[in-house]
Amino acid sequence: MNAECIFCKIVSGQIPCTKVFENEHLLAFLDIHPAAQGHTLVVSKRHYDRIDRSDPQTLAEIAKALPKLTAAVQKAAGADGYNVLCNNGPAAGQAVEHLHFHIIPRRAGDGVMKAWKPQTYPQAHLEQIAGKINAELAL
Amino acid sequence: MNAECIFCKIVSGQIPCTKVFENEHLLAFLDIHPAAQGHTLVVSKRHYDRIDRSDPQTLAEIAKALPKLTAAVQKAAGADGYNVLCNNGPAAGQAVEHLHFHIIPRRAGDGVMKAWKPQTYPQAHLEQIAGKINAELAL
Repeated sequence: MNAECIFCKIVSGQIPCTKVFENEHLLAFLDIHPAAQGHTLVVSKRHYDRIDRSDPQTLAEIAKALPKLTAAVQKAAGADGYNVLCNNGPAAGQAVEHLHFHIIPRRAGDGVMKAWKPQTYPQAHLEQIAGKINAELAL
Repeated sequence: MNAECIFCKIVSGQIPCTKVFENEHLLAFLDIHPAAQGHTLVVSKRHYDRIDRSDPQTLAEIAKALPKLTAAVQKAAGADGYNVLCNNGPAAGQAVEHLHFHIIPRRAGDGVMKAWKPQTYPQAHLEQIAGKINAELAL
């Protein structure tokens, strides 16, 4: 537990939430500033700030819960689909530095999340950046 | 394998990709229409169309790989953070109906993904929708 972390306080019950599910590893509750009705946050019970500094087993436990949780959120919201999104770092829009996945119910044409503008690569650059990723993975 | 699925064809080697990592469960390769340089797709080797119709264990295996993969992509791209995003259903922007997670390197102010406009709930509605999600989970 991180004493300054709002999600740790929600997990411990110091701050209330509208809970939809919990197990040993995670707590799922409604986002109070939703992108769409039914927008749910899935947070780890242990404090991790980002995916790359999380315990892989904790992430696995969160992932295992997603099929049932996402189906339930979509149906309850009467939506046609959903995004599962985890922002890592302020540059990526992470507002609370505690590992959390957004489940955002979506309807066709709702404009909730805009598609990015696709870029293109020269082939040599594709291989160059893949090589850099390979090199990082080999460290 | 789904004979009509472009990601199944990439997994089987019928269509080439710029691979960055693979194991028994997943293949990670560069998106050829990236939101940002280094944008990586992590796809299941087995064909599932959406998270809610995926095998929880496959999702767990993908999640376990994310700490190393996301760290490598961020470093290789020289980024400050990243989004992990899985779109489910055409309404949510899913372009290829084969389970895949985007790892999108991000820099402060890059404008790659815009923040949504937060909505608010009356408290009664929060509890109503949480009740619906609970009811779906209990089915």
